[in-house]
Amino acid sequence: MRHFLTLKDYTKEEILEIIELGLRIKAEVKSKRFTPYLEKHTLAMIFEKSSTRTRVSFETGIYQLGGTGLFLSSRDIQLGRGEPMKDTARVISRMCDMVMIRTYSQSKLEEFAKYSNVPVINGLTDEYHPVQLMADYMTMIEHGKAENAKVAYIGDGNNMAHSWLMLASKLGFELRIATPKGYECDPNIVDDALKFAKESGSKIIFTDDPKVAVSGATVVTTDTWVSMGDEEEKEKRIKDFTGYTVDDNMMKLASDNAIFLHCLPAYRGLEVTEDVLEGEQSVVFDEAENRLHAQKGIMVWLDGKRKEKQIYEV
Amino acid sequence: MRHFLTLKDYTKEEILEIIELGLRIKAEVKSKRFTPYLEKHTLAMIFEKSSTRTRVSFETGIYQLGGTGLFLSSRDIQLGRGEPMKDTARVISRMCDMVMIRTYSQSKLEEFAKYSNVPVINGLTDEYHPVQLMADYMTMIEHGKAENAKVAYIGDGNNMAHSWLMLASKLGFELRIATPKGYECDPNIVDDALKFAKESGSKIIFTDDPKVAVSGATVVTTDTWVSMGDEEEKEKRIKDFTGYTVDDNMMKLASDNAIFLHCLPAYRGLEVTEDVLEGEQSVVFDEAENRLHAQKGIMVWLDGKRKEKQIYEV
Amino acid sequence: MRHFLTLKDYTKEEILEIIELGLRIKAEVKSKRFTPYLEKHTLAMIFEKSSTRTRVSFETGIYQLGGTGLFLSSRDIQLGRGEPMKDTARVISRMCDMVMIRTYSQSKLEEFAKYSNVPVINGLTDEYHPVQLMADYMTMIEHGKAENAKVAYIGDGNNMAHSWLMLASKLGFELRIATPKGYECDPNIVDDALKFAKESGSKIIFTDDPKVAVSGATVVTTDTWVSMGDEEEKEKRIKDFTGYTVDDNMMKLASDNAIFLHCLPAYRGLEVTEDVLEGEQSVVFDEAENRLHAQKGIMVWLDGKRKEKQIYEV
Repeated sequence: MRHFLTLKDYTKEEILEIIELGLRIKAEVKSKRFTPYLEKHTLAMIFEKSSTRTRVSFETGIYQLGGTGLFLSSRDIQLGRGEPMKDTARVISRMCDMVMIRTYSQSKLEEFAKYSNVPVINGLTDEYHPVQLMADYMTMIEHGKAENAKVAYIGDGNNMAHSWLMLASKLGFELRIATPKGYECDPNIVDDALKFAKESGSKIIFTDDPKVAVSGATVVTTDTWVSMGDEEEKEKRIKDFTGYTVDDNMMKLASDNAIFLHCLPAYRGLEVTEDVLEGEQSVVFDEAENRLHAQKGIMVWLDGKRKEKQIYEV
Repeated sequence: MRHFLTLKDYTKEEILEIIELGLRIKAEVKSKRFTPYLEKHTLAMIFEKSSTRTRVSFETGIYQLGGTGLFLSSRDIQLGRGEPMKDTARVISRMCDMVMIRTYSQSKLEEFAKYSNVPVINGLTDEYHPVQLMADYMTMIEHGKAENAKVAYIGDGNNMAHSWLMLASKLGFELRIATPKGYECDPNIVDDALKFAKESGSKIIFTDDPKVAVSGATVVTTDTWVSMGDEEEKEKRIKDFTGYTVDDNMMKLASDNAIFLHCLPAYRGLEVTEDVLEGEQSVVFDEAENRLHAQKGIMVWLDGKRKEKQIYEV
Repeated sequence: MRHFLTLKDYTKEEILEIIELGLRIKAEVKSKRFTPYLEKHTLAMIFEKSSTRTRVSFETGIYQLGGTGLFLSSRDIQLGRGEPMKDTARVISRMCDMVMIRTYSQSKLEEFAKYSNVPVINGLTDEYHPVQLMADYMTMIEHGKAENAKVAYIGDGNNMAHSWLMLASKLGFELRIATPKGYECDPNIVDDALKFAKESGSKIIFTDDPKVAVSGATVVTTDTWVSMGDEEEKEKRIKDFTGYTVDDNMMKLASDNAIFLHCLPAYRGLEVTEDVLEGEQSVVFDEAENRLHAQKGIMVWLDGKRKEKQIYEV
């Protein structure tokens, strides 16, 4: 049985296989064919942080696959408070077929997965956001940006930056990460990525100059400067990120038909301007929709692994 | 594509077509036939105010039509806070097939609808409550009160009064609205209604004497005096509405077999007495159940319009 | 039509029939057969207290039976506040096919049931927890402990103790209840149980010495000392329950292959030790899973009674 906690655990072949599976199911659903890949399956969706996109995409996704989602908010279930994680994990995984967790620390997620009898999916932690990256890469493929990709990530060295590090270093494409001083990526994750990059041939560049990162990039992306939990230092962060706004001038430095990605919600005037977000190069709503499709690929793939046969191949 | 934001946007023929559709589906479900009119459809249900009836009727309704409902409370999704409405609308309508919104201002609802790729339904705003009126008229039909209707609305000039104005002026029946001084209907909505009434032949009477309104009425209805948001001025309102309680004496002034409608929750001893609410003329639980059936008509009709073919005619 | 509010209302034959039905459906689902016993049924799940197990087991259960669950928390619906219970009951039971309620007082539950047009299930009250007991007895059957059962309940004379009293006195097995002074069971419930015990031949023993209770028992069980609502007197309770911890020494006094049950969540070091909870005699996760299966039996049985024919016999 496999979990989907971080791309660190996945090979290039597995990542591509999952995305291809997601694309295949997307094509089916677009032509109104709803194959019950996960017939009568229940997905427990545990949210310790609230989220529009993750909630709607997983709940719609499992439903279109023939199953149903149970929305368990931190108001309804308290992970690791009141009841030890290992007990909650064993109880829920006795009743449900798959679990998605949005929580704070990656270690909390891993503790749950350790005791779960069914596959566990990372719906966002402080360290990683792997399901978002699967959607992002699916979007790159659809917009012809998967070949010879040069991705520029401009902004906070957070879970999105970490996830880009994993994706690039596993798949072998070029990644430039521009972060202000004091907002660099986690050095342990960087070490892992550089190790994987050596194997895959990925070129990874760290800089504190956004212009260097974006120059000639085929994909430009950023994320909020003030994630959930960072609100109290909002003013300081906005000041520290001066010069990191993705605007028209920055996009002009990128490759001519570069695309702009953003996992949303976007804060106009901060990490990105209204012009870029709503401009022709922005594919952020395709990207948002692909959360739905990419996650279906992940769920069907995990279920196949769980059963030790790949039912989706039938 | 059409939205269902207010009856102002609908013709008499459309209103009747939707109710007839709702009645047809009601008859099917009563004989345990669940035609999957909206097979595999997802309805996003966004609640900025909580509600028992709206929640249960929409979630049960979409389910019985072959789809599923996603309950998104204001705790899980914050419309227009954190993320601009236009982004939330575009993201959700990329993933779901229809959206129902219960919110405060009609303009917020309209903003969402403007950016939505899928039909949007008004589940209650400060201005209008059109789905309730569809259920009310369905109930009038079933109880033989649609012909030569004379409806007396006694109480607050609120969203229910506004919605009765739209229904009557569109369909052409007589409506008497009795409101205390200071609680009259919105003059802009009254202007619209009077314009429609001229076309339809509807007679609309405004008075501050409940007895005048109820005299000879075939349908008597009221609504709470203290809507969500009015709580702080509760004492003042109760005083100002003295004489507006629908009681047995008032019902005696109405037509002999007049029916009593109330969208619930009802506050006994305030806008209506226990005797009237629980009396023989009261059809409030039929009315409540018809929320389920009328809304199915709306959803199936909107989906037909969206597809530019009326699938329910097949 | 029948409700499932307390085992007091049920005969031995009915209890066993429901459990057998649950076991039959469990076997089907384990072999991936999902018979739609409750096709297109909606279960309203009203929670005035939050709960992981009850929520997940009922929502998964109704789904696997061919229906769907509506999760209505006290944030979304306020039982008996704002709207009289009798109105809420009539509205919800017009739209849904079955109702599960987790609330505080049994009388509140009974009031709802009185006005409901559809079967109502007790999902936990301050007085009783009958669905848990059905799962517990199912677990006893599966582990070969139903014959000649001697059950020792060690701890608080709460809703779990009361429910064991009802189960034992109806089915006729031996029950020993050890509670500290001041934490005895409700005398009215004890009186009822002793009356039933006389008919069934059940031997029921009350003691304040846990060792007496556990001696030779074939089943040992306990419950938290600090239920929801008791938090402010936590320190006092922990002191008062000194000597009531189910530990290895206590288990040694029980029958050689006695099983340990706990409805969870468990508080290690208080009512039970880590060693016992995680030990070989503990079957608490089988027990938790059986919530799912036992409750399916209850729901299908109630639906059969509602229809005045036992559709599950077909």
